[in-house]
Amino acid sequence: MATLKVPATVPAVADDCDQLRKAFQGWGTNEQLIISILGHRDAAQRRAIRRAYAETYGEELLRSITDEISGDFEVKPDHTYELVISDRLLCRACSADDGDQRAVILWTLDPAERDAVLANEAARKWQPENRVLVEIACARSSAQLFAVKQAYHDRFKRSLEEDVAAHATGDFRKLLVPLVSAYRYEGPEVNTRLAHSEAKILHEKIHHKKYSDDEIIRILTTRSKAQLLATFNHYNDEFGHRINKDLKADPKDEFLKTLRAVIRCFTCPDRYFEKVVRLAIAGMGTDENALTRIITTRAEVDLKLIAEAYQKRNSVPLERAVAGDTSGDYERMLLALLGHE
Amino acid sequence: MATLKVPATVPAVADDCDQLRKAFQGWGTNEQLIISILGHRDAAQRRAIRRAYAETYGEELLRSITDEISGDFEVKPDHTYELVISDRLLCRACSADDGDQRAVILWTLDPAERDAVLANEAARKWQPENRVLVEIACARSSAQLFAVKQAYHDRFKRSLEEDVAAHATGDFRKLLVPLVSAYRYEGPEVNTRLAHSEAKILHEKIHHKKYSDDEIIRILTTRSKAQLLATFNHYNDEFGHRINKDLKADPKDEFLKTLRAVIRCFTCPDRYFEKVVRLAIAGMGTDENALTRIITTRAEVDLKLIAEAYQKRNSVPLERAVAGDTSGDYERMLLALLGHE
Repeated sequence: MATLKVPATVPAVADDCDQLRKAFQGWGTNEQLIISILGHRDAAQRRAIRRAYAETYGEELLRSITDEISGDFEVKPDHTYELVISDRLLCRACSADDGDQRAVILWTLDPAERDAVLANEAARKWQPENRVLVEIACARSSAQLFAVKQAYHDRFKRSLEEDVAAHATGDFRKLLVPLVSAYRYEGPEVNTRLAHSEAKILHEKIHHKKYSDDEIIRILTTRSKAQLLATFNHYNDEFGHRINKDLKADPKDEFLKTLRAVIRCFTCPDRYFEKVVRLAIAGMGTDENALTRIITTRAEVDLKLIAEAYQKRNSVPLERAVAGDTSGDYERMLLALLGHE
Repeated sequence: MATLKVPATVPAVADDCDQLRKAFQGWGTNEQLIISILGHRDAAQRRAIRRAYAETYGEELLRSITDEISGDFEVKPDHTYELVISDRLLCRACSADDGDQRAVILWTLDPAERDAVLANEAARKWQPENRVLVEIACARSSAQLFAVKQAYHDRFKRSLEEDVAAHATGDFRKLLVPLVSAYRYEGPEVNTRLAHSEAKILHEKIHHKKYSDDEIIRILTTRSKAQLLATFNHYNDEFGHRINKDLKADPKDEFLKTLRAVIRCFTCPDRYFEKVVRLAIAGMGTDENALTRIITTRAEVDLKLIAEAYQKRNSVPLERAVAGDTSGDYERMLLALLGHE
């Protein structure tokens, strides 16, 4: 249920590269051309363009996008030249004021690479209210999460869990480290007896407000999604409330919010992401980081479902809400990814 | 530094299968033939033999080895026929009294599959003194450990960390779950400042006997091996003792023993394995499980180094010690893997 629209006849990779090269020669004036190309290519096509572009012009596509040609590049021992450049670019892009540039760069990256960059940002500047690590750990498949960990090694020369463990603290660390470390089983098998007994454990711990108890952490961070769904369903049947309702005892508690985000990413990722988008758009100003993250990470996955959930919840199409809250090239880029004709 | 000896001219896979089939028709009498084939084939060759054997005779090679043809096989939903058979066989083989049969079966498995079987056994019947999980988590590369986790999913329809978390308890669980979950960075990069500061943390916690402190667990379970080596070296330089000496405060404490095993698997796996073999052989009787495990898991890796360490430490060649402590087909199988001519 992706929103990304790829043309029926996609130009040859060499033609795309040629057009992009022309567009970069006058960045700003030709950003629409860049968006019209990259905003309508899937992950494999973007990868082919990046490879061909680097071969043809001897320069990283991402480097051209940020138009960062001056300056010396420190090449540290054991770091490749290309990597250092990309890291610098990404650091700039991640902290860039230009919403459109950040959106184009995040989108152009491979999904695993993009998640690695987002996870690194979230780990290094860790804040209890940051949900990026939860999203990457819980709303990706096991194979996708593993690919993120590989991309993290390649890019940052460290492991994801290492950085999370070094920066997160207290109960958050206790939850987040195993969450990003897990390689969950993904089959459909469910052990009903286990679902009953673990629903009971969860209920008892929550009832006694032991929200960061080892057993809650163990169950949430190791069981398969199918098994967890059965456990949450049994919780509801047996105790008469959804587990997330019982985890709302103190609505402002950030740890409880994180637990609820974990559970929603497992059980209803589209509605979870709808809420993130809704809060990013609502009120004065726009949370561009959140909006860009959800649209770039979900456009090839389930953004159609998220947009449907948005319309249902807010009685306005997501496209229209995004158009009303953004402008210029940033708006154009987001609308392209939303499948706007 | 493997000991496995593969002949210069390896027979065609079909010929190996043919010979094996003949040997199985009189199990016991022809076990020497089985050992002479499987005990001299590397992992890729054994895989090819298993595939060809199953295709030619419509029967798993492992099934033929255990000679278990009678009985009905329950095929559960979503389990393949082949898998169910293999699981039954492996359960029998793992608990088999026949040392030779267990050795041949463990050896015939792919390395990742073999580790998954050993890890499952260790997790299900978890005991504080069992070091199998430590060996698999710490004496394999990150890619190998990940392959074990994939094989674990395929075979047991659960995750390795899930089973470890459900069976291990207390401080052991706190250590073992992140240990088997980690996907460590494997590059050579070392952060010297970090090595200094984390050596200090380790020393302080050990000094206060806080052996299961979150920080000790975090450092041991997330840092790369290169980084940990630097940290342990700095510990030695700064505080005048090897860290493992400081972890010997109570030599009988199983948790301290486990921590020392973790560190030895990182820093000197060959000497760690030499000690396991030495203890398996020493005294009355033989710890066949340990001996079989080390020889089958290391014959294609570093058994030569382990044998050298053994000779150095015990003034007797490992081959001779094994021959003196075992007999019959079990002895023949172990000696074949030890590279005995």
